[in-house]
Amino acid sequence: MSVAARSLPLLVLLALGSAHADEGMWLLNDFPSQAVQKGYRFAPDQAWLDRVRLGALKLGTGCSASLVSSHGLVMTNHHCVRDCVQDLSTPKDDYLAQGFFAPTERDERRCPKLEASQLLAITDVTEQIRAATRGLEGPAFAKARKEEMARIEGACATGPAVRCDVVTLFHGGRYQLYRYRRYQDVRLVFAPEFPMAAFGGYPDNFNFPRYGFDVALLRVYDGDAPASTPDALRWARKPAVEGDLVFVAGHPGGTERVQTVEQLAFQRDVALPWTLLRLAELRGVLLEFSRGNPELYRITRARIRTVENGLKGLRGRYAYLATPAAFEQKRAEDGELRSRVQADPALAARYGPAWEGITRALASERRIHAELRMMETSDAFNSELFEMARLLVRAAEELPKPSEQRLREYSDARLPSLKQRLLRPVPVPKEVERVTLSFGLRRLRDDLGADHPFVQRTLGKDAPEDLARALVDGTRLEEVTVREALWTGGKAAIEASTDPMILLARRVDADARAVRKVFEDEVEGPLAKYGELLHQAHVAVYGTSGYPDGTLTLRLSYGRIAGWEQDGRRVPAMTRFDGLYARSTGTFPFALAPSWLKARSALDPKTPMNVATTNDIIGGNSGSPLLDRNAEVVGLIFDGNLPSLGGDYGYDAATNRAVAVHASAILEALEKVYGAHRVVSEIRGASAAKTR
Amino acid sequence: MSVAARSLPLLVLLALGSAHADEGMWLLNDFPSQAVQKGYRFAPDQAWLDRVRLGALKLGTGCSASLVSSHGLVMTNHHCVRDCVQDLSTPKDDYLAQGFFAPTERDERRCPKLEASQLLAITDVTEQIRAATRGLEGPAFAKARKEEMARIEGACATGPAVRCDVVTLFHGGRYQLYRYRRYQDVRLVFAPEFPMAAFGGYPDNFNFPRYGFDVALLRVYDGDAPASTPDALRWARKPAVEGDLVFVAGHPGGTERVQTVEQLAFQRDVALPWTLLRLAELRGVLLEFSRGNPELYRITRARIRTVENGLKGLRGRYAYLATPAAFEQKRAEDGELRSRVQADPALAARYGPAWEGITRALASERRIHAELRMMETSDAFNSELFEMARLLVRAAEELPKPSEQRLREYSDARLPSLKQRLLRPVPVPKEVERVTLSFGLRRLRDDLGADHPFVQRTLGKDAPEDLARALVDGTRLEEVTVREALWTGGKAAIEASTDPMILLARRVDADARAVRKVFEDEVEGPLAKYGELLHQAHVAVYGTSGYPDGTLTLRLSYGRIAGWEQDGRRVPAMTRFDGLYARSTGTFPFALAPSWLKARSALDPKTPMNVATTNDIIGGNSGSPLLDRNAEVVGLIFDGNLPSLGGDYGYDAATNRAVAVHASAILEALEKVYGAHRVVSEIRGASAAKTR
Repeated sequence: MSVAARSLPLLVLLALGSAHADEGMWLLNDFPSQAVQKGYRFAPDQAWLDRVRLGALKLGTGCSASLVSSHGLVMTNHHCVRDCVQDLSTPKDDYLAQGFFAPTERDERRCPKLEASQLLAITDVTEQIRAATRGLEGPAFAKARKEEMARIEGACATGPAVRCDVVTLFHGGRYQLYRYRRYQDVRLVFAPEFPMAAFGGYPDNFNFPRYGFDVALLRVYDGDAPASTPDALRWARKPAVEGDLVFVAGHPGGTERVQTVEQLAFQRDVALPWTLLRLAELRGVLLEFSRGNPELYRITRARIRTVENGLKGLRGRYAYLATPAAFEQKRAEDGELRSRVQADPALAARYGPAWEGITRALASERRIHAELRMMETSDAFNSELFEMARLLVRAAEELPKPSEQRLREYSDARLPSLKQRLLRPVPVPKEVERVTLSFGLRRLRDDLGADHPFVQRTLGKDAPEDLARALVDGTRLEEVTVREALWTGGKAAIEASTDPMILLARRVDADARAVRKVFEDEVEGPLAKYGELLHQAHVAVYGTSGYPDGTLTLRLSYGRIAGWEQDGRRVPAMTRFDGLYARSTGTFPFALAPSWLKARSALDPKTPMNVATTNDIIGGNSGSPLLDRNAEVVGLIFDGNLPSLGGDYGYDAATNRAVAVHASAILEALEKVYGAHRVVSEIRGASAAKTR
Repeated sequence: MSVAARSLPLLVLLALGSAHADEGMWLLNDFPSQAVQKGYRFAPDQAWLDRVRLGALKLGTGCSASLVSSHGLVMTNHHCVRDCVQDLSTPKDDYLAQGFFAPTERDERRCPKLEASQLLAITDVTEQIRAATRGLEGPAFAKARKEEMARIEGACATGPAVRCDVVTLFHGGRYQLYRYRRYQDVRLVFAPEFPMAAFGGYPDNFNFPRYGFDVALLRVYDGDAPASTPDALRWARKPAVEGDLVFVAGHPGGTERVQTVEQLAFQRDVALPWTLLRLAELRGVLLEFSRGNPELYRITRARIRTVENGLKGLRGRYAYLATPAAFEQKRAEDGELRSRVQADPALAARYGPAWEGITRALASERRIHAELRMMETSDAFNSELFEMARLLVRAAEELPKPSEQRLREYSDARLPSLKQRLLRPVPVPKEVERVTLSFGLRRLRDDLGADHPFVQRTLGKDAPEDLARALVDGTRLEEVTVREALWTGGKAAIEASTDPMILLARRVDADARAVRKVFEDEVEGPLAKYGELLHQAHVAVYGTSGYPDGTLTLRLSYGRIAGWEQDGRRVPAMTRFDGLYARSTGTFPFALAPSWLKARSALDPKTPMNVATTNDIIGGNSGSPLLDRNAEVVGLIFDGNLPSLGGDYGYDAATNRAVAVHASAILEALEKVYGAHRVVSEIRGASAAKTR
């Protein structure tokens, strides 16, 4: 135990004993309505919660969304569909630059790789997983757990329109089966100009006051007709104002709030710096690559924004762990829990092994981290064409096996998404592929060293840029028919292929699978096993389970519209259209699109534009609806402020803010900037119809 | 105190009570000859130490060097004179690519900005500084210390050929006046091809086995004739072999081995990540900027190598702090010292304030770090032309003041170096300036935010790249005559100037000076004051002062030629020419220069090429001679292995290795690859003459 643990016992007990005001990414089947009632004199009931669950959607891109008309209309962020808009753009019809609005339903354009899912049912399967893994250790535990999950999902997934995921909650403390209605035909209805969606660019990202119009509309289709979606959320007739109670329903990604201090140190010292340095260098490459050349910029800008968003977001996460007070608080919490477990022989016998088990898993993770990143993630093979090649090579190997024995992403329950990703036609700009693959291969040699056997196997005597050029120029995987032939041809087709990208994917696969297996056996499995113990220890000591860490599954958070104090300065809760116009400089990223310049006189300058709220959200919540106490839409979450980026590790009610586009701004701009009357009536109509 | 401090007391006492075998960057007037005698049965005497002191040189670029003939011939690393070689290169005579050898003395080319210094005398001035600062706190302490240092230096510097530095040792525990013979006319004699000097590029940098020919020869001149240098070191007639005792005399840069754990955490969490992310992004920009365009590559490659070397070196430093065992050892050492101070009321009263004082200083440093980096260092104004502008603007302001009241780098004792840097003609490639300044200004806005007053003052409504282009295209500071006119014209000329770079430097100067003043008063001053206390506490508790942290002042380290164990694998102590040829792939950075391909059959393949030694060195030691027990040259230090990069914080005898070019490789290649017979005879002749 550390100094801090002993000097801060009261504070620590306070912090752990009850969640902070407004903290929490709550399960919809375990929502603290009493706490909300106490703070806000309103308690969502089960019908309210069910309504929100069915109105919320999950996008395959790792974003959230919501149904906003009974006719399949879906609202999300522009940045959640940026890749789709980019895929649909051509030099002539540059929808990312100029925006997109389908004047009629027939003009709505299918997003090639996008799917959306609606959560229909939740079933607890903890006991089934426990039974399958009881008494097992190490690789045997990992294997049994994985196979049981695949079995449960396989039994649930009765067709391509049903998606089933066994989700791990409380780091293995609970397992639940989520059954979704899957929509694979998702079409683009509206997207504003990229410069409006990302107004302020890198400098304004995660800052506030903010002026982003990060909005997009999609429509889910069923049998080539708009899906019937009676569960759509209604649009609020009363605009939200400062102080209002608001809810966010969405899919926060992997937070790490219940971790040992060693796990946090691993993030701070190893994982985050690795990724940050990679993104920083890639940012430099891509900005310079596209500088001064409109066509190269056109094919690179979506990727640049993704890289920049990751870079700034992870810097924020890093900043939290690098703040002595925050980290020492975490050290104190961990030390407190551990010492209370150790003080009680029964607890110590049962939960004591958690810390040592996690320490061992982390030692393995530190050891293999660079190899895992280079061989099995896309760090070295930073190329869509390579990803296709690997997917084809592995599918040929995996699909003949029983579903539960395959690599997890090839299980039957996951095939529909996989096939959509692989076989839908999307443009693959080879100029960008050459640059990103060169970058990845260069870093492979830089980071593992020229003498590493895997580097030798990958590069031979080639320079990274020469190999990248030969691979990208030589492959034909950009053609859907070529991919289809290899997919249906299976192992024989793969073995007969002379496509250089397929040959590379085959050459490196044994090493990649080997390091992945070490990861699963020595890291992932043990962290699940001992994470479960840690969670149980938490419950045993503090008597409450609280909310589970974010896992890209549906959660509900509550809070209110509020500004905050930063460095002694008051940050307001809301911005307005007039502030947007004042901030414009005429040059990127502070240049307004022509449509907004033209519409200026028609717009009400006092229209609220962006709002800050105390809701506890994180990446993955992008595109979530902001709801009032009637479960009606009052905004669209698209960001958090800088302090919210530490939300991976903790929530500070004083400064952590979610950022949303205000519902009034959405309708006002759709009508007066974009003339999108048909969808505005549709949104308003749905509300009117429902509230009759 | 932490767990580690209490569970490792014996280990800690051992580690602190006596330095590890071969550890130490020793002062030449305080060398542990007894310890060397004990370990190696040889003890350098005062004559030996004086000989080495006079044979060693310090280069103005932050490197080390040595005199190797009585005729002013100087040996150092290619990477220490890379900028000079680049400055002398043209598209037609590309000395960096093709190498340089002056067939006669008349062909030797002056390095515009390089100076070399020979340490003539050391005087302790601790009492003078103490007297001047006694009883003072905060800004008053910092001011008095700075002024007394300038006074002492001013009294010592009797002319431009004398250079005087008051150096701070033991973080303020001791102050010494170093008086040097200054050479400002330094000429290039020999440089190999850049691809040979940096063979293996980024991937091989800091790795071993290694095959770098990182060698350069210079000559110091006096009144347009080669300087007479009777103090030159002799070349050893017997080549060094594995196991030999070897010494390194050179100028290790700022190490941080005696620091509180909070100071180390500041490095790990704030300073290093900031610099690493900056370098990573800049690397991406520069590599992509120069890719596929020979002329852009020609003007960028030296900068790229500097950035890459910094990036990899700092990653190594970071890796040390990110290793739990290493950091916990540091935590234990700090905790042990602190608890022993606190356990004794007399010690506690005297030295106890050190920790709190350092904590306060670090809180200030964390607070101002981003602003300091952006406003006062070159992070934002990443441009040689801007640096010239700032130097001119500040000189006009500072020079009229009494020397000791000026900013430290403008004191009389430092003017000769300053003027040389500013007024010597060097090419400034504007294409690179535009790119690096755009990058810096972009990061300025990214990191401080678009609303920061300093960002507003710098950029106004301009985009970073637009402003950078306007500044670089508009300035005329690349012309020496323009700089001279502004230098001699003083304040009136500066105020009348409409040069855009001068205008920018004036516009930002007040803010930059303000944050610098906060840094000096709240960070630098207190860290010197409390660093002194910490050092005294160390001496009081452990009874020995050991060696001071590196400060770019002359030090001597001892060790032996030895390999090491890495991940269970034996790394050899030496490489040979045949290994170099085996490693060649024909493509950068593993492509041999044509001269080496041609000379292959003439070379003895068994010639030792690079050697690893246990000497405790660090950045700044580049170019140091590797000496045997006769104080004769057996090699040329140019690098360390990856574990040595943690040497900023600690030395591990098991893995920390210095890396040198073997003396045999130097002469063999000079003769048979480069036909540099006149310098080989000169080197051999000096030895012969001296040993007659």
